Amino acid sequence: MNLENRINNLRNLKSGLHGKDFLLTWEKSEDELKMILEVASLLKDLRGQNISPRVFDSGLAISNFRDNSTRTRFSFASAANLLGLTVADLDEEKSQIAHGETVRETANMISFLSDFIGIRDDIFLGEGNKYMREVGNALDEGYESGVLPVRPGIINLQCDIDHPTQSMADLLHLKNTYGSLDALKGKKIVMSWAYSPSYGKPMSVPQGIIGLMSRFGMNIELAYPEGYDLIPEVVDLARKNSAENGGSFNVSHSMKEAMKEADIVYPKSWAPFHIMQQRTELLKNADRSGLKDLELVCLANNAKFKDWEYNAEMMNVTKNKDALYLHCLPADISGVSCREGEVNAEVFEKYRLRTYIEAGYKPYIIAAMMFTNRFEKPADVLHGILNRGNKRVF
Amino acid sequence: MNLENRINNLRNLKSGLHGKDFLLTWEKSEDELKMILEVASLLKDLRGQNISPRVFDSGLAISNFRDNSTRTRFSFASAANLLGLTVADLDEEKSQIAHGETVRETANMISFLSDFIGIRDDIFLGEGNKYMREVGNALDEGYESGVLPVRPGIINLQCDIDHPTQSMADLLHLKNTYGSLDALKGKKIVMSWAYSPSYGKPMSVPQGIIGLMSRFGMNIELAYPEGYDLIPEVVDLARKNSAENGGSFNVSHSMKEAMKEADIVYPKSWAPFHIMQQRTELLKNADRSGLKDLELVCLANNAKFKDWEYNAEMMNVTKNKDALYLHCLPADISGVSCREGEVNAEVFEKYRLRTYIEAGYKPYIIAAMMFTNRFEKPADVLHGILNRGNKRVF
Amino acid sequence: MNLENRINNLRNLKSGLHGKDFLLTWEKSEDELKMILEVASLLKDLRGQNISPRVFDSGLAISNFRDNSTRTRFSFASAANLLGLTVADLDEEKSQIAHGETVRETANMISFLSDFIGIRDDIFLGEGNKYMREVGNALDEGYESGVLPVRPGIINLQCDIDHPTQSMADLLHLKNTYGSLDALKGKKIVMSWAYSPSYGKPMSVPQGIIGLMSRFGMNIELAYPEGYDLIPEVVDLARKNSAENGGSFNVSHSMKEAMKEADIVYPKSWAPFHIMQQRTELLKNADRSGLKDLELVCLANNAKFKDWEYNAEMMNVTKNKDALYLHCLPADISGVSCREGEVNAEVFEKYRLRTYIEAGYKPYIIAAMMFTNRFEKPADVLHGILNRGNKRVF
Repeated sequence: MNLENRINNLRNLKSGLHGKDFLLTWEKSEDELKMILEVASLLKDLRGQNISPRVFDSGLAISNFRDNSTRTRFSFASAANLLGLTVADLDEEKSQIAHGETVRETANMISFLSDFIGIRDDIFLGEGNKYMREVGNALDEGYESGVLPVRPGIINLQCDIDHPTQSMADLLHLKNTYGSLDALKGKKIVMSWAYSPSYGKPMSVPQGIIGLMSRFGMNIELAYPEGYDLIPEVVDLARKNSAENGGSFNVSHSMKEAMKEADIVYPKSWAPFHIMQQRTELLKNADRSGLKDLELVCLANNAKFKDWEYNAEMMNVTKNKDALYLHCLPADISGVSCREGEVNAEVFEKYRLRTYIEAGYKPYIIAAMMFTNRFEKPADVLHGILNRGNKRVF
Repeated sequence: MNLENRINNLRNLKSGLHGKDFLLTWEKSEDELKMILEVASLLKDLRGQNISPRVFDSGLAISNFRDNSTRTRFSFASAANLLGLTVADLDEEKSQIAHGETVRETANMISFLSDFIGIRDDIFLGEGNKYMREVGNALDEGYESGVLPVRPGIINLQCDIDHPTQSMADLLHLKNTYGSLDALKGKKIVMSWAYSPSYGKPMSVPQGIIGLMSRFGMNIELAYPEGYDLIPEVVDLARKNSAENGGSFNVSHSMKEAMKEADIVYPKSWAPFHIMQQRTELLKNADRSGLKDLELVCLANNAKFKDWEYNAEMMNVTKNKDALYLHCLPADISGVSCREGEVNAEVFEKYRLRTYIEAGYKPYIIAAMMFTNRFEKPADVLHGILNRGNKRVF
Repeated sequence: MNLENRINNLRNLKSGLHGKDFLLTWEKSEDELKMILEVASLLKDLRGQNISPRVFDSGLAISNFRDNSTRTRFSFASAANLLGLTVADLDEEKSQIAHGETVRETANMISFLSDFIGIRDDIFLGEGNKYMREVGNALDEGYESGVLPVRPGIINLQCDIDHPTQSMADLLHLKNTYGSLDALKGKKIVMSWAYSPSYGKPMSVPQGIIGLMSRFGMNIELAYPEGYDLIPEVVDLARKNSAENGGSFNVSHSMKEAMKEADIVYPKSWAPFHIMQQRTELLKNADRSGLKDLELVCLANNAKFKDWEYNAEMMNVTKNKDALYLHCLPADISGVSCREGEVNAEVFEKYRLRTYIEAGYKPYIIAAMMFTNRFEKPADVLHGILNRGNKRVF
C-alpha cells in the first residue's frame, strides 16, 4: 500500500490520544495502540524515502532519567530530533524520591517552552508511575493557570509498572514479522524469567509484555521459578485482557514446559515482587547494609535457577525449533557478557540481528507517541508532510 | 494593540544594544531596557500565536555555568532554541578561578561558530563580572584579528554583582501585572533579607533588583538585619537612580516596619558583603577549614534573625494586606523545603502560581537580549518574521 | 575566484570519499585530501557570506569521546550543527577497553537515526584505531542486514596513530598562509619534540603531521631526544611518502640543529613509543602502582631535556628568524601554563593569534569530512546550496 492510502486508513481509527500522556498501554484503546503502531511505521517509511517529518520549528523535549539508560536515551533523542525538537536533560541526583513542592515547581520551571517530558523512573516500586502522574498534575495546574502556553505531554520511558515504549516496539516488530496484528492471534508467546548474575532488574518489561500482548489474542505463557512473581494486579489485568480478546493466559514454573510449541519467546531476568517491595523500603530508608544483605540473599536465590537459560535444548521444543526470540537488550549472554546468563551464545547469535531490528522501532514508537499527543488529526498532518515533501537530506 | 503596531513602536526607542554584551542593567539606557522588555513580549506573543521567531538556521550558544543552576540553564536553552541556536555546554571544574591565558584561549576555541556565550559565575566576590569582561576582551581580540567571523555576545546569567536576566524578568512581570512601566511609578517595593537555613546565597538578586527597579520611579525599601550589607557601590548607585527617576530609596533594619503599605515585596536571603569578602579570600586560598568555620559563624548569625520570615503578620501590614510577592525561586518555604525559612507556607501558596508566571519571562528576556544584540534594527527583523509566517508547530 | 568557479573546480578531483570512514590521512588519495580542504574552505566562505550550508533537516551525530577534549568536542559540535545535525554524546567510563559484543551492539543501538559517529580514542597504543574499525564493521553489518537505514560515517577525532582532523586543519592553515598547496613544495617543516612537565601525551599529532605533510613535497625534519621514537611504521610511511612526492625526510636529535632554516616549526611534547607500549600493558592490567612508577621514570627522563624549549635562540636560527609556529593547543608555555614547557612565552605570544586561526579550521575540516562522506557529488550539492541561498542569520 502506498503512503497516501496508509495515511488515509488512519482515519478509520478512533483515537483519544490527543493531549493525553502515555503512561500505561492498558490505559489506551486498541484503536489508539494501532494508531501509534501505524504512525510509527509511517514516520519510519517517510524518513526512509528521505521525506522529513519534522513538525516543530523549535521546542524542547525534556528527558528526565532517574535511572541509567543508553538505548532509551538515544531513542528519545532520535524521536525528538526527527520531529524537530531539542532534548534538554534534567539532571537529578540518581534515583532520589523527590516529591511534593519540588516536583510541582520543577515541572513548571522546565516546561515554559517544552513540548514533551520523557521520564524513566523504575527504581522504586510504587513510585515511578506515581511520580509521572505527579508531574502531570503539576503541568495541568501550570497550563490551566496560564503559566504554560501548552501542556507538555509525558511519555513513560520505563517505570516500576510498565515499559510502554519497549513493549510497543516489540509489538511493531511482531506485527512486521508476521505481517499484521491479526496474524498474531493464536500465536503462543512465552514471557519467561531467565537466570542472570545481576540482581534487581525491574519487572516493567515482563509486565509490559503480558499487559500488551494479551490485547491481541495471543496465547500468553508466563513462566518463572516459584517466588518470582510480578505485581499481582498486572498479572490479573493480563489474564482479563486475554479472556476478553480471544487469547489464553497461563502461569507455569518450568521454562522447558513453557517453551513447548512456542511461536515467540522472551526469556529475561527480573527481581521478584516481594524483593522489590523490601528493596524499596530499604532504599527509602537509605539502609545500605540492608540493601547489601538483600542483594546477597537475592543473588543466592537466583543461583538456584541457573538452568533457566534459553539454549538449544529450550529452543528445540519450540515451534519448528525456531521460535522468534525477543529481548529488550542488552541480554546477559552466557560466556559473552557473563559466565552464565539468560541465553546461550549460539542461540542468541542466531537471532541477534533480529533483536537489533526489534530495538530499531523504539525511536519511531516514541515519535508516534509525541505525534499523536500533539496532533488531533494525525492523518491531516501526515498528508501535509507528504505534500510538503521536505527532504531530510538535501 | 496588534503585533504590527507594537513592532512599529519599537522604532521610537533609541537603542545601542547591537553588538554589546549584557552584563549589568545599569550599563543600559532606559530605552534599551524598554526595548528588551518589549522584544521579549513580542517573541512570547509570536510563539503564542504559533509564529516561529527562529532567526538562526544554525549556530551555537555556549553555556558556561560556573555554579549550579536548573532554572537559568533551562531558560538559556529555551531562548537559544527559540531563535534556532543549539546549546553547547562548556564544562569546567566547578567554581574555579581560571584567568589569563586559559580564558583568552578557551574563549576563542569555543567561539568559531558561536553566536552567544551565557555565563553564570556568582561564587567569588569581585571575580564573576570581571571574568565575563575578560572573556569579552578575548572575543574582541579574536574578532578583530580575524580569528572569529562574528563577535559572540555575552549574556550575564548571574554574577557577583547583578542578575540581569532575573531582574528583567521580574520587571516584565511587574509591567504586565500593573499594565505598564508608568504604572510602577510611586509603587513601594520592599527588597528584604529573609532567614534561610542555608548560607552563602549570592547578593546578585537583591543588588539586581534595587539597581533596576530604581530606574522606574519606584519607592525602594531595602531592609536587612544590621550587618547584612550589600556591595556599597551598588547601593549608592540605586540611591542615585532613585533620586534621578522620581522615586525614593530607603534602607531599614526591621522587616515589619519595611513592609508597611508595600505594593510589592521580595523577601529573600543573602550572605553579607563582609562574609562574602572573607569567603572569597578563603576560596582563593582553598582554605577548607577556614571555609567550614566561616559557614558555622555565618549560620549561627543567621539564626538570630529567624523572625525575618515573610508570613501573614508581615503580609497584613502591606497595602491591602496583599502586596505582590516576588521570588526568583526556589524559595525556602517554612515547613515545606526547610523547617524555618524565608516565607510561610500558606503565604507562599497564595502567590505560588504568580511566581511561576514571573519565572516564565526569563527565557524570553534572554532571547530578547540575544535578538537585540544581533540585530541592529529589531523592528525590521520582527516584521520579517511576521510576514514570513513560519509556524512553530506544523 | 568566486564561489561558483571554485565549486566547479571540485569536479576535477577524483574522489572515493563517498561512504568511506575517515580514519587515517594516508588511506586517502591526494585528490581526496584536496577535496576535503577545498570543501572545508567553501563551507567556511559560504557561512562567512551568511549562506547556510545546512543539508540535514534532522539527524544525529554521535560523539564518542574516550578521552577528555574541549577543542575537538566543540569542533565536532560546530561541524554537526553547521550541517543541521544534533550531537548526542555516548558517555562511557573513561578510557575503557570494551570490545566484542558490546561494541557491536552499542554501535547499532545508537545509530538508528544517526548519520555520523565521531570517535576519540587515543589512550591505548594499538587500540584506538582498531576500535574505530570494529565500530565500522558493526555498522557495516547493521546496514547490510537492514538494521540501519544508512551507514553512519565514522570520523577519527584522534586515535593512537593519527589525528587527521588536526593535521588537515594544520594543512589548510599552511595552504592559506602560503597561498596554495604547490607553494608548500620545498618548504622545511620541523616536527620537534619539546619538553613538557606532563607525561603520556599521545603520539598521534606528530605522527599525523609527518604522515600528511610528507604528501606535499615538503622537507620534513623529525627531531627528538634519543629514545623518543614514534611508531616505526608511521615513520617509515612518512619517509616513503617524502621520497615519492619530491620532498625529503630526516630524523635528528638536536632541536637547534633541526630548526636551522626552518620555514615551519611544530614543537610539541609526546611520550616515547616504548613507554606507550608499557603503559598500554599496565593499563590493560589495571596495574596502578606500575603506572605510577612508569610515570615517575618517564617524567625524570623528560626532565633531562628541558632545553628542548622553543625559544628565541631556536627561533633565531629559523628562516628569517621567523618560522611559522604551529601548535594543536593548548601549548605548555613556560612561565604561563607551567614553569618550564614547550615554548617560551614571548615567542608563543608572537604567533598566538595565528595558532587560533589554525585551530579555527578544524570545525570546517570535520564538516567537509561529513559532507564528502555523505554526498557522492559534493559540487552538485554545493551548487544547490548556493542557488537555494538560505541565510544562516535571518
